[in-house]
Amino acid sequence: MESARWIEQVKWDDAGLVPVIAQDAISGHVLMFAWMNREALAKTAACGEAVYWSRSRKKLWHKGEESGHLQKVKELRLDCDNDVVLLKIEQLGGVACHTGRESCFFKQLKHNEWQFVEPVLKKPEEMYGKK
Amino acid sequence: MESARWIEQVKWDDAGLVPVIAQDAISGHVLMFAWMNREALAKTAACGEAVYWSRSRKKLWHKGEESGHLQKVKELRLDCDNDVVLLKIEQLGGVACHTGRESCFFKQLKHNEWQFVEPVLKKPEEMYGKK
Repeated sequence: MESARWIEQVKWDDAGLVPVIAQDAISGHVLMFAWMNREALAKTAACGEAVYWSRSRKKLWHKGEESGHLQKVKELRLDCDNDVVLLKIEQLGGVACHTGRESCFFKQLKHNEWQFVEPVLKKPEEMYGKK
Repeated sequence: MESARWIEQVKWDDAGLVPVIAQDAISGHVLMFAWMNREALAKTAACGEAVYWSRSRKKLWHKGEESGHLQKVKELRLDCDNDVVLLKIEQLGGVACHTGRESCFFKQLKHNEWQFVEPVLKKPEEMYGKK
């Protein structure tokens, strides 16, 4: 399939990826950061749910496929240099992080230490089941 | 100089960099995305203003050094995997983007096109002077 023009306008890096920031569309909280390849971005736009490229597992990752915590895309944005994507989303379940917190950015630098400043809302074993 | 423990806890990539998201501390708007190396992060924490690593110019980049649009750091956050930094900042001059817009994320996907959806607040030639 030929790639859409708007997808080719993204400046893909040498690995064929683009960094992606996911932000809660209502609260404005930055929830997570991940990567997409062309196929992930195309699928995200087509189905209206965030689909990333997992660099560790080397495969497409439909966010929430295991936990049910899908991300409904409200806006898809691109930056001035065409090399970073911003998703404004509705986070189903209210939890984006695999630790069970709303956001992955829960460590804050205080007194030269990374301190945990956000609560766990859901236990990971509830999210992913016991294995 | 020996690197601080909290800096070594960041998971630096193969190029010695970490991706950084800058967010307005009050409005929650995501303003820009850039990179830091160890020295940039140390300087950012020490001086309370965002200092990035410019990958194109291959040198430290004290944001706003030319335009006066410094970024005062209110919070410094790290994600669950220790490989992405989030800065909550006060954006002096109200403009983070070199195009004169508040945010770099001013293109929105609509009808399979990237449409410009944010106004230019300051002309670039006013920000950087005529050369």
